[in-house]
Amino acid sequence: MTTCETQARSAATIAAAVREGRLSAVALVESLLTRIDERNGALNCYTEVLSERARREAARVDAMVRAGHDPGPLAGVPFGVKDNYDVAGRVTLAGSIVNRSLPPAAADALLVRRLSAAGAVLVGTHNMDELAYGFTTENAHYGATRNPLDPARSAGGSSGGSAAAVAAGLAQFALGTDTNGSIRVPSSFCGLFGLKPTFGRLPRTGTFPFVHDLDHLGPFARSVGDLALVYDAVQGHDPGDHACAERPAEAVSTLLDQPLGDLAVGVLGGWFDELADDQGRAAVARVADVLGARDTVVLPGTDRARAAAFVLTCASGANLHIENLKRAAGDFDPATRDRLLAGALIPANAVLQAQRVRMLYRDEVLAALARTPLLLAPATPCSAPLLGQPTITVAGQALPTRPNIGLLTQPLSFVGVPIVSFPVVSDGMPIGVQLIAAPWREDIVLRAAALLERAGLAGRMEVGG
Amino acid sequence: MTTCETQARSAATIAAAVREGRLSAVALVESLLTRIDERNGALNCYTEVLSERARREAARVDAMVRAGHDPGPLAGVPFGVKDNYDVAGRVTLAGSIVNRSLPPAAADALLVRRLSAAGAVLVGTHNMDELAYGFTTENAHYGATRNPLDPARSAGGSSGGSAAAVAAGLAQFALGTDTNGSIRVPSSFCGLFGLKPTFGRLPRTGTFPFVHDLDHLGPFARSVGDLALVYDAVQGHDPGDHACAERPAEAVSTLLDQPLGDLAVGVLGGWFDELADDQGRAAVARVADVLGARDTVVLPGTDRARAAAFVLTCASGANLHIENLKRAAGDFDPATRDRLLAGALIPANAVLQAQRVRMLYRDEVLAALARTPLLLAPATPCSAPLLGQPTITVAGQALPTRPNIGLLTQPLSFVGVPIVSFPVVSDGMPIGVQLIAAPWREDIVLRAAALLERAGLAGRMEVGG
Repeated sequence: MTTCETQARSAATIAAAVREGRLSAVALVESLLTRIDERNGALNCYTEVLSERARREAARVDAMVRAGHDPGPLAGVPFGVKDNYDVAGRVTLAGSIVNRSLPPAAADALLVRRLSAAGAVLVGTHNMDELAYGFTTENAHYGATRNPLDPARSAGGSSGGSAAAVAAGLAQFALGTDTNGSIRVPSSFCGLFGLKPTFGRLPRTGTFPFVHDLDHLGPFARSVGDLALVYDAVQGHDPGDHACAERPAEAVSTLLDQPLGDLAVGVLGGWFDELADDQGRAAVARVADVLGARDTVVLPGTDRARAAAFVLTCASGANLHIENLKRAAGDFDPATRDRLLAGALIPANAVLQAQRVRMLYRDEVLAALARTPLLLAPATPCSAPLLGQPTITVAGQALPTRPNIGLLTQPLSFVGVPIVSFPVVSDGMPIGVQLIAAPWREDIVLRAAALLERAGLAGRMEVGG
Repeated sequence: MTTCETQARSAATIAAAVREGRLSAVALVESLLTRIDERNGALNCYTEVLSERARREAARVDAMVRAGHDPGPLAGVPFGVKDNYDVAGRVTLAGSIVNRSLPPAAADALLVRRLSAAGAVLVGTHNMDELAYGFTTENAHYGATRNPLDPARSAGGSSGGSAAAVAAGLAQFALGTDTNGSIRVPSSFCGLFGLKPTFGRLPRTGTFPFVHDLDHLGPFARSVGDLALVYDAVQGHDPGDHACAERPAEAVSTLLDQPLGDLAVGVLGGWFDELADDQGRAAVARVADVLGARDTVVLPGTDRARAAAFVLTCASGANLHIENLKRAAGDFDPATRDRLLAGALIPANAVLQAQRVRMLYRDEVLAALARTPLLLAPATPCSAPLLGQPTITVAGQALPTRPNIGLLTQPLSFVGVPIVSFPVVSDGMPIGVQLIAAPWREDIVLRAAALLERAGLAGRMEVGG
């Protein structure tokens, strides 16, 4: 296998080749570093390339193989993480300059440590909206990330650098974060698989927070197999995250071929249909057709849930950054600063009401999922807009781009259900379809994604070049 | 057994007599109704005596016995509930007049239903601080409840009517609620056993809320046996309460004789020692001596935790009552109104910070309990003050009575751990000692209470008259 071929191969295939000594992890990393060197200037997806660390880790993997030890199920597989994951010795900037005064991280984020233990090789950190507060990765300090499928367009955000790197073949997979849609939106815009697991599933230990009650970690990949393999490698409780559930890891990557059986599948109507565009609706219809969806399901109160997610997000973000806002508001990205300042002025009553709305809307969503265990909706109200594009058209109205890209993701992360964004192949720019299940049922959304992938709906992922 | 003797008997003894046909539930209720009629005027512990319902329920119990059916482990045992528990057909006033516009409750509170199913007989509802916001049961609308041990003194609050009724023998047991100390404070002042279970243990379905994240339900009784028997009868998950844990019932009443073994026992120092008075310290010392306590445990950040509990309480209370505050602030008890209005003006940042403080302080408390599984502290900074007494002396300072009675209970309910208030016998007014364990370890605090009761520390409960 040449290193070039490996760009289009699965993580499992690469790891098998490395573990069997047929592929050198060092050679793979060198090839990738060259590729990053060639392409990152145009795409701006990496904020830092950790060349020396990657070479050292790859060498360690190769040495283990030579010594007859097993480096793990992701042996030699190169990955990157969003700029809000701790990397030992590095200040976790989270796309900001206000974080520059923080001490360097003493250790890698827990999920990075778990991936390293599985043999994966960290190659760098990825650009993002400042402090994860945005949907376009147009960062005032570090520039915009460009979409590898069309460099004039946004890669989505806030985990846009991670999505662009994976879509461009500059990482086999990546880890991002999703508070209101920040994994699903860039997955949709870049044509990737993204998993936002159940809230509380993956411990956030060693990542820079945004909204304690809404932050999720999760992977991006170019195939369902990769997505599930990475997800399995990072599962497991950790007491360092107060929201992390004390549940055992529940491996999914070995279950992807299991049929869904006679599981009822439904399409989300109302809000999720009215605010979608024709491309989104058509993508959902194709997925619905393959999965045999029969029901249309309307979730009452979705408008309130989305408003409440906004309120909680800006108030909690302001609470987290209040000292920096008082001390150095001018150091914030203008796109972030004004919302955080507004968040600092919100009365407690609005936040408590938002927390109530969340609880009640969660009841609605769980009741719907009890009747219809797999629900479908577009991930975004449109495919990737141009960078700097001021408005998008939603239900016939021109709305400001940045706050409205998360229209269809926000209400769902608000209630913590697991979701895969499935990239539906298209002649033009892709769009994602959210596969939505009840809490802790990542197995359902990943098996559904695998079924759709086998049916050819995701097409063949191009890795750019 | 005469009905007069039954006042001093255990719930189990009464139920056995009723089940075996040796005691008529109807006769017992009639005797109790007479007693209530004689004494409630002076004590003002009942807000409503449900004579007809009690007679009907007692007759049903007797009929079951005659028919050879088992009415349950609390057969014929008369009890009352705080005025914030739903009683079918009755408006749940929660000590307010603003609630008068609510419709009558369609059903009993879930815990009342469970007790009825166990054969217990509801005899009435008990006075409380308005909307459960207070520690003295001095209610501007419905008057003050008097302490049966000294009618010039407060029975404590907010569940003061329930404690006074049980202490006066006007109910065999009662159910109250505890948000910041409202079961433990009146237990301490009236010389009763009170259990505030783990947050999330007992479903609050059908009770009028105060602070969603802090409200607990729990029983009052004159013996540990009664307390545990009632607790066992009301356990079990219910989906009607979002905070209720999906745990099976864990019966404790059969385990009360089990020794504690070599469990480490500690006395809380710092805040819990400095703000206690000599009587409280002496009571803790006696308990510590019997339990062989060796450690002094200091919980860092208790001052912040108590402040945060205040912030969350008044902001959440304001959120719950905001429409009534806008519409009819003058209908609130002046002692409640000003704090709720202040709560409505709190910025979100303070509430979010309070929620953070709660999470971090909980870590401290859980870590301490992992090392020392049973901790001790006085329940109140003093024994029952006089009704209307403006100040109490705390650490040499005169502090306003009402807000400071909960000094020693507030930080602990804030983190949701299970606590029994144990009444230490005294020549004068009694004082309670909090027996504190890790979440879900009600068994520890109830077994410890049983051990102390067998050692004679609670003395013999007088039932007044």
